[in-house]
Amino acid sequence: MDIDASNKTAVEKMMSARPMLKGVAVARDVIPGMKNNLFLHAGPPIEWKRMSGPLRGAIIGAAIFEGLAKDEKSATAMVERGEIEFAPCHEHNTVGPMAGVTSPSMKVYVVENVTHGNKAYSNLNEGYGKVLRYGAYSEDVLKRLRWMNDVLGVVLTDALAQSDGIDMRTLIAEAMHMGDEGHNRNKAGSILFLKLLAPSIVKVAKTDVASEVLKFIGDNALSVLNPVMATCKAMTDAAHGVDGSTLVTAMARNGTDFGIRVSGLVGKWFTAPAEIPKGLWFPGYSDADANPDIGDSAITETAGIGGFAMAAAPAIVTFIGGTPKDAMNATLEMYEITTAEHTTFTIPSLGFRGTPTGIDIRKVVELGITPLINTGVAHKNAGVGQIGAGLVRPPMKIFEAALEAYAEKYLS
Amino acid sequence: MDIDASNKTAVEKMMSARPMLKGVAVARDVIPGMKNNLFLHAGPPIEWKRMSGPLRGAIIGAAIFEGLAKDEKSATAMVERGEIEFAPCHEHNTVGPMAGVTSPSMKVYVVENVTHGNKAYSNLNEGYGKVLRYGAYSEDVLKRLRWMNDVLGVVLTDALAQSDGIDMRTLIAEAMHMGDEGHNRNKAGSILFLKLLAPSIVKVAKTDVASEVLKFIGDNALSVLNPVMATCKAMTDAAHGVDGSTLVTAMARNGTDFGIRVSGLVGKWFTAPAEIPKGLWFPGYSDADANPDIGDSAITETAGIGGFAMAAAPAIVTFIGGTPKDAMNATLEMYEITTAEHTTFTIPSLGFRGTPTGIDIRKVVELGITPLINTGVAHKNAGVGQIGAGLVRPPMKIFEAALEAYAEKYLS
Repeated sequence: MDIDASNKTAVEKMMSARPMLKGVAVARDVIPGMKNNLFLHAGPPIEWKRMSGPLRGAIIGAAIFEGLAKDEKSATAMVERGEIEFAPCHEHNTVGPMAGVTSPSMKVYVVENVTHGNKAYSNLNEGYGKVLRYGAYSEDVLKRLRWMNDVLGVVLTDALAQSDGIDMRTLIAEAMHMGDEGHNRNKAGSILFLKLLAPSIVKVAKTDVASEVLKFIGDNALSVLNPVMATCKAMTDAAHGVDGSTLVTAMARNGTDFGIRVSGLVGKWFTAPAEIPKGLWFPGYSDADANPDIGDSAITETAGIGGFAMAAAPAIVTFIGGTPKDAMNATLEMYEITTAEHTTFTIPSLGFRGTPTGIDIRKVVELGITPLINTGVAHKNAGVGQIGAGLVRPPMKIFEAALEAYAEKYLS
Repeated sequence: MDIDASNKTAVEKMMSARPMLKGVAVARDVIPGMKNNLFLHAGPPIEWKRMSGPLRGAIIGAAIFEGLAKDEKSATAMVERGEIEFAPCHEHNTVGPMAGVTSPSMKVYVVENVTHGNKAYSNLNEGYGKVLRYGAYSEDVLKRLRWMNDVLGVVLTDALAQSDGIDMRTLIAEAMHMGDEGHNRNKAGSILFLKLLAPSIVKVAKTDVASEVLKFIGDNALSVLNPVMATCKAMTDAAHGVDGSTLVTAMARNGTDFGIRVSGLVGKWFTAPAEIPKGLWFPGYSDADANPDIGDSAITETAGIGGFAMAAAPAIVTFIGGTPKDAMNATLEMYEITTAEHTTFTIPSLGFRGTPTGIDIRKVVELGITPLINTGVAHKNAGVGQIGAGLVRPPMKIFEAALEAYAEKYLS
């Protein structure tokens, strides 16, 4: 088994993938395997009884949004009667930030990797504050979700239908020269996204609606996060299933467990309890309020951006803590555990060196260096929301377990 | 004479100025001293016979645009008969990039420094390619100018009338955390500008016009340059006229001469022949085709951004040449000749250190270090346009002359 050759194949697939944002559609109509009582969630598989507060909160909110339940009590009862099924987003070509709950009626971005033909999906971003993805489900959260589905989603569908799609790889590369790392800092990417969509939005929407939509997208510095995540998912899925490869193709957290998938070990998750991120807390909160790490957004680091590209985004430290030097060091450390330097995503301050791309579980275990992930932090109770942002690493034991499984499959 | 105290007063006025973009209006209606046969130009005062090709070209174009002449020949004849008067933009609270020609009918941005009450003006940016400010005046150049006045200018006037103004100092500070330096790289600032205006543009313009305007502003990575220049002019004018101050309050070039003004030496320009910038040439051109340094855009460096903030914009080297390390060193060198670190404009990669602000002619002469300016380069012939971009420094002798004049006024 020539492991290096397999990894080269895998990482080249990841980097040659060219995901185009093609449209916005109803999850039920486009996500493979989606059905009326299936709710997708972030991270590896998990049962209701082991779910953390924010994930439960998001599920309750989605059940009310879908019209399946009228309140927390009836939603919980439905779940306990087994009337709602759960599956990881990742097992349905989908990714969602934080709780990542994606229910059948929600609008989702449709991203197509035109190099290899695979598709990926992600829901629409709600902005900051009390939002479903952090487990909040009050009436204003649900009202915003309805507006996003009925107004924003319709406008985006019609505006994207006017175009040949948005080349998301190019957008990310450009944003990375404008101080974004693509996970926790998407300020530049979000207004590049606005710039590309605005001339069409005006054409497909009435004046007041167009104005409202332009303001919503422009004011939300995370607008582009979800299509960026779907882009990274389309890239990493292209690298999944390469025989003999030790590359990580997913890192994802459900708020209870951290899970990874490995290219050469199709069908398996390697999991362990998720940790509490370290970072800056919003006023009035501390790590005692924090939920363990949650969300599919670590797909960005899996694809070579996010925490791995922090050297491109020194201003991010105002949000997650530390110094610009720490941001630089984070990127430099990640070169140790990766296979390639990205051919499209480059970092000006490192002389346009490509970002560290393609995590090799062998290097992680051998060097004792786990991947560094930028992340938002949710309150541990359902219904509260975001309380901070910071950095987190996956537990080392999942890489060890993956390497053991690899040895068993390929080397025994 | 406590020179340091005078300089502290001057630089604090420069940094406490808060210029707000309040509107767009016709130059004739708002610029002090503007009249029907007065054309403003970049740089220090100059007569027609000493003007370079691109400045002559822009004046010919403006005469045709104003309806005063029908072609190059009749425009030149008018000028030679003395029917058109000239004055530096700077002497009328105005700044213009490259040739900087601002004629009475042109729409201009109106920026008000709400801290000290002074105003500054700049025309609208035409984008890249064959444009008046580089001395081109073909029919397509004039057609674009007419569209800018009759369509873009009207939409901007109406959109800005809906707002309380745009806080330009905040916009620049944010853009500087997104890889702009504010002179040659305004990618982030231009789409921040778009983001702020888009919701109002939609409300004041018909669908097709709104779409066209959003595309024009979004596609032009220099859209925000002119309001940024007017912002810097409002800041440096606030610092002008402080008794005993040796701070530079204007650096400007007319394509023939480089001129500076000094805070404590009101009413004087110090000039010497402008030099040819060093940089990257567009395909097919070389320094043999280049016009000497031209434009009021060095007002950005005078206010502490542009070349002085290059450490914030490592990606700029793809446009002007050199390496990201050179960009870092440029900023570090400029700390040697300045008085303060900017209280609002900060550079993440330098640990959020303020940009070097307030050039002291004493330090320039004593250390032998002249200011470093980012710039576009014009073809030396009228009617051609931009042929490259790079770096340039003013001649040392103008700082020596200013220091001599200072000694004569204050120390003799």
